[in-house]
Amino acid sequence: MAQHRYMLAEDRIPDRWYNIAADLPSMPPPPLNPGTGEPIGPEALAAIFPMALIEQEVSPERWIPIPDAVREVYAMWRPTPLYRAVGLEQALGTSCKIFYKYEGVSPAGSHKPNTSVPQAFYNKEAGVRKLSTETGAGQWGSSLSFACQHFGLECEVFMVRVSFDSKPYRRLMMETWGGTCIASPSELTNAGRTILAENPDSSGSLGIAISEAVEVAATNDDTNYALGSVLNHVLLHQTVVGQEAKEQLDMAGAYPDVVIGCVGGGSNFAGLAFPFLEDKIAGRDIRIVAVEPASCPTLTRGTYGYDFGDTAQMTPLLPMHSLGHGFMPPSIHSGGLRYHGMAPLVSHVVHTGLVEATSYSQVECFTEAVRFARAEGIIPAPEPSHAIRHVITEVERAKEEGVEKTILFNLCGHGHFDMAAYADFLGGTMQDLDVDEGELSRASEALAALPGIG
Amino acid sequence: MAQHRYMLAEDRIPDRWYNIAADLPSMPPPPLNPGTGEPIGPEALAAIFPMALIEQEVSPERWIPIPDAVREVYAMWRPTPLYRAVGLEQALGTSCKIFYKYEGVSPAGSHKPNTSVPQAFYNKEAGVRKLSTETGAGQWGSSLSFACQHFGLECEVFMVRVSFDSKPYRRLMMETWGGTCIASPSELTNAGRTILAENPDSSGSLGIAISEAVEVAATNDDTNYALGSVLNHVLLHQTVVGQEAKEQLDMAGAYPDVVIGCVGGGSNFAGLAFPFLEDKIAGRDIRIVAVEPASCPTLTRGTYGYDFGDTAQMTPLLPMHSLGHGFMPPSIHSGGLRYHGMAPLVSHVVHTGLVEATSYSQVECFTEAVRFARAEGIIPAPEPSHAIRHVITEVERAKEEGVEKTILFNLCGHGHFDMAAYADFLGGTMQDLDVDEGELSRASEALAALPGIG
Repeated sequence: MAQHRYMLAEDRIPDRWYNIAADLPSMPPPPLNPGTGEPIGPEALAAIFPMALIEQEVSPERWIPIPDAVREVYAMWRPTPLYRAVGLEQALGTSCKIFYKYEGVSPAGSHKPNTSVPQAFYNKEAGVRKLSTETGAGQWGSSLSFACQHFGLECEVFMVRVSFDSKPYRRLMMETWGGTCIASPSELTNAGRTILAENPDSSGSLGIAISEAVEVAATNDDTNYALGSVLNHVLLHQTVVGQEAKEQLDMAGAYPDVVIGCVGGGSNFAGLAFPFLEDKIAGRDIRIVAVEPASCPTLTRGTYGYDFGDTAQMTPLLPMHSLGHGFMPPSIHSGGLRYHGMAPLVSHVVHTGLVEATSYSQVECFTEAVRFARAEGIIPAPEPSHAIRHVITEVERAKEEGVEKTILFNLCGHGHFDMAAYADFLGGTMQDLDVDEGELSRASEALAALPGIG
Repeated sequence: MAQHRYMLAEDRIPDRWYNIAADLPSMPPPPLNPGTGEPIGPEALAAIFPMALIEQEVSPERWIPIPDAVREVYAMWRPTPLYRAVGLEQALGTSCKIFYKYEGVSPAGSHKPNTSVPQAFYNKEAGVRKLSTETGAGQWGSSLSFACQHFGLECEVFMVRVSFDSKPYRRLMMETWGGTCIASPSELTNAGRTILAENPDSSGSLGIAISEAVEVAATNDDTNYALGSVLNHVLLHQTVVGQEAKEQLDMAGAYPDVVIGCVGGGSNFAGLAFPFLEDKIAGRDIRIVAVEPASCPTLTRGTYGYDFGDTAQMTPLLPMHSLGHGFMPPSIHSGGLRYHGMAPLVSHVVHTGLVEATSYSQVECFTEAVRFARAEGIIPAPEPSHAIRHVITEVERAKEEGVEKTILFNLCGHGHFDMAAYADFLGGTMQDLDVDEGELSRASEALAALPGIG
């Protein structure tokens, strides 16, 4: 019987996170205080993050131990399966070996609980009562609600109004796990009230929701803020994905020639890729590819420099590829990839040439998502369909070059809450919604006034 | 670290199905031809089922080998996890040990692919081109679409009109896997046209949908029919669930005092329970409980006798507990449990006292579903919330009796496509919808004209 699925025993859940900072040939520049233009220190973050996470954010240590209490929650679904995509290989008629790590088996259906669980844990340890956060389509809000429920924290999620109204099922998931979900902009914060005063019918944005969640954390002593991507400690927590994948590929007697992940803020990509990037830095011949939507092409068409993490300019300036903090991406179905910026660590490794970046349009991604679903039985979330689309490119290139590659990608979530997107595609009404050139120019102009890098 | 999850390696996927017929102290009476009142032979089924499945339907053999091609598809998600419900035990403050087998990890999110895969395989082997079937909420239709896609069969699903209109996501799942989904009653069949002529606005019923699917199979040489529960061979295929659970409980050093499953047609219950019933028949002290909704209380309030499997009286007469083939169950969210009859094998073991039966109302089941989701992280489908509700009863009784029980139940599917039901519950609008006494009397009257048993 051809082996499809490589499973690890529960005691093989990694007991440490891998910190790429320890191995990078050079480090990204520091975040800056937008007022002074000076590097911000850890203490500036203490109002909204617990010290344990701030220490992880700036740690130079290669390995960070995973607390037992976190590993016990991970054990609900980790180690996740690594699949050999036998069905897809047959459907493509390729002699390449295709493997994928499947993070959709988590309670929330994506990789997000890998970081929501430790974030909730460290906040609980620090005596915090409540976490606030923002969410777009709801993947992160539901993951944080799950984790807060486990550790006995309250969870308040500001959900972009347009998603709150149109995607009730992820909101219900949050409520089932005991979280509170609020349409943003709301009357609960100054940021929200200001927006509503100007535009009572505002449909919201991720930038506004971040502002509301940060305000709640900054103005309440017993409340902290939690972020689902972008920051170093978030990427760190995701490295359980790549560590497990390496061990599972060993079981299969394989090692990848190319590692692929989709990128929005960068965390699922980094989680799979960074443990392999360690090998590349050590001299191993391996390619690593970050795949983004053509409607929000941060790495491929953005500017590498300093920008705000949010629209309302409340965050520190982060060193990253950005389309500009005022960029409004088209309403593609991959809500998790609609972010104007990128994790500083991911931006840095792309900027320094360790990692490649590419982009694809929405319709070609869904074409491959459906082919994948029919061949492999798993319906992908729209976000990882970008990774699947690039697998096809690699397979085609391998054929042209007459070589047999081993390809690994991260299937970071299932599409059970995205069937409306499949309806759009199968019904023939889906459009590419590639980035508008005028919007791209307008939004990037604001970057000229901010510090550059290098 | 407390162990939560017991996993088996891929080579531990069972290589044979367990046939309870080989061990029963007595056999259920045979199905009857409604015209003649005589037992029907296997040949009567040959127009709509392949011979391999008909042989399984009547086989006296204890073990039926599972074809390698079926095990290869099972390997996409099997063996499924067995969980120790550590979180639920803590939430309940019980010293009972609670375990659950989780079938929600399958591509379709339930136990149904355990039988859709072999059914598609045997039909493909027999040269069939297309399978037709009916579906209520869509669990079975999506599972059969998945299996047909794998084996290169066409799949035509008649979906009850009211669900077709109100639950588009499971229909989209069928279409994503290449299946065709038709609202029933339809213009494609005589049965459908007859209904529509009388009532152009008919919202359909499972009985009508069965009639349409059977008609398509019976009148097309290259088309067969597939059923998702009730029949012996369907229950047989589900026994991979209980076989794996036994081995996983061995890993945990445990054996259940009580085994629990929800029952609609009976297949997920039988799949978990029959391998344990084998032990009970051999003398082991174990209780087995079938749990049904108070709105469709087939085993607890139905009549044990002969009845038709469908509303339109097209099927053979089956020996089973029934509320009457004309019974219209209230519109509870557990669509998979809204069936007037019961698998003959399940009816027989309840009738002969080997298995207990009990029922619960909708609201108390969802109360426990939410408690479970918060404690265990997995959002249950409405159907297995009945099993969870009975776990609570067993825990309470254990406390009263001062004993520590080991409890095993089947979490036969996740609730990702049932979030509207959670909205109903969390919004405080859910009603119990227990069976209407008048409807119960009216529907059961028809049974008096049909043959009895015993």
